[in-house]
Amino acid sequence: MYERYCMRRIELIVAYDGTKYCGWQVQNNGITIEEVLNRELSKLLKEEIKVIGASRTDSGVHSRGNIAVFDTETRIPPEKISYALNEHLPEDIVVQQSREVLPDFHPRKCLSRKTYEYRIWNRRFRNPLNRLYSYFVYTPLDVEAMQEAAAYLVGEHDFASFCSAGSQVTTTVRTLYEVSVTKEDDLITIRLQGNGFLYNMVRIIAGTLVKVGTHAYSPEDVKRILEAKDRQVSGPKAPAEGLTLMKIEIDESEPHYPNPAE
Amino acid sequence: MYERYCMRRIELIVAYDGTKYCGWQVQNNGITIEEVLNRELSKLLKEEIKVIGASRTDSGVHSRGNIAVFDTETRIPPEKISYALNEHLPEDIVVQQSREVLPDFHPRKCLSRKTYEYRIWNRRFRNPLNRLYSYFVYTPLDVEAMQEAAAYLVGEHDFASFCSAGSQVTTTVRTLYEVSVTKEDDLITIRLQGNGFLYNMVRIIAGTLVKVGTHAYSPEDVKRILEAKDRQVSGPKAPAEGLTLMKIEIDESEPHYPNPAE
Repeated sequence: MYERYCMRRIELIVAYDGTKYCGWQVQNNGITIEEVLNRELSKLLKEEIKVIGASRTDSGVHSRGNIAVFDTETRIPPEKISYALNEHLPEDIVVQQSREVLPDFHPRKCLSRKTYEYRIWNRRFRNPLNRLYSYFVYTPLDVEAMQEAAAYLVGEHDFASFCSAGSQVTTTVRTLYEVSVTKEDDLITIRLQGNGFLYNMVRIIAGTLVKVGTHAYSPEDVKRILEAKDRQVSGPKAPAEGLTLMKIEIDESEPHYPNPAE
Repeated sequence: MYERYCMRRIELIVAYDGTKYCGWQVQNNGITIEEVLNRELSKLLKEEIKVIGASRTDSGVHSRGNIAVFDTETRIPPEKISYALNEHLPEDIVVQQSREVLPDFHPRKCLSRKTYEYRIWNRRFRNPLNRLYSYFVYTPLDVEAMQEAAAYLVGEHDFASFCSAGSQVTTTVRTLYEVSVTKEDDLITIRLQGNGFLYNMVRIIAGTLVKVGTHAYSPEDVKRILEAKDRQVSGPKAPAEGLTLMKIEIDESEPHYPNPAE
């Protein structure tokens, strides 16, 4: 039988509008998502709470489904924590789900599949209704060329060309399962799904695909950029407001949830 | 040949995020879209400008394509006014187009077709990324029942049941060409197209359809509500944040643009 600890690990699915935040991780020069969660959870549960985030999103980046875990001795049922916490969170941070996970589950030290969307508003004039959630590009973009370029990125590759300096990873090899470019109305969405993403990887890919869309690069250039393994040859990092972390799916092989049936 | 007057009438297509505004029309208790346009146009063109709006949207209602016209002696080419004005407007108001119209064109005294969308986020938890542009409804809504109910509203009807008190119209008969209800992800969109809309009509229709979605009303009740011609029997007015005026199409029979070919 599953043993119920006095201390339990709780997982939160966290959605946020990143506009006003200096990203996820606690830092000195502004308020962060992690900080607000720590503060409000500590107040609610009356113990000091420190969350561990799955993805340390950058300043201004949005989320529909980041994951945070924390340990608590509370007797509030795990599923109810989301409702109680949302009562106290600002309206730009909303917990979508809370549940108990295994005590040693760590959202950054497990196999997972992350999905990001990068949105571009491609029209002569800005749209005030999506200005906070998309990158405004005035120049008409060639979506077919962007799609052709995106196809080169699918699969296992060394994405060193798409990684900002300052990252401390042991390998820059990652696998992308999907890189799609779709257009609806004047909104272009680049959707990426992969087993991991390097520092600024999605935004550098987006910036590079925009260069393809303006014909500054050819689709084949993206293949060459990938092979060069050099950040100097890829496009600029696209702005934060266009980026949303959509979801994180933990690999089924990972010990994650306590199994009440055992 | 078309005679170029010293004084010309200019038409603007105006998009705005209505969140921070007390609606379109100038009033005392807060800033309005009309007021900002008058102020910035007057500064830009160095003459006193008063715009006439096609639709006096309520406090908190958004727009992708409201129409405003004004008269000016400026020598700035009509098409360039949008760019010059956008430089001075706040980021939540963006002019999408400017062009010259006939001097007697009046956007409220002409035949037109207006399209509105009312958005409902229908999920257990709020979505912080669309909180400003949709109405959050926790209860799962029956979209098929809403579609069935919406069908009763299409056509020429007396919409007295869907008109707030305080309106000073001579007739409450209007024609709706389209009332559709679609769902994508957890977002339900009610789209309405008609030759005119009464005071709060879209929001009362949306509030009534939500009642159908929760099974508080049956689809057939909407037929009875319509026939009753009584605001007391329809549903509540749905909140402003869900409503966006999408576009206004001036009827082709209306004298609208100067014809440079003549």
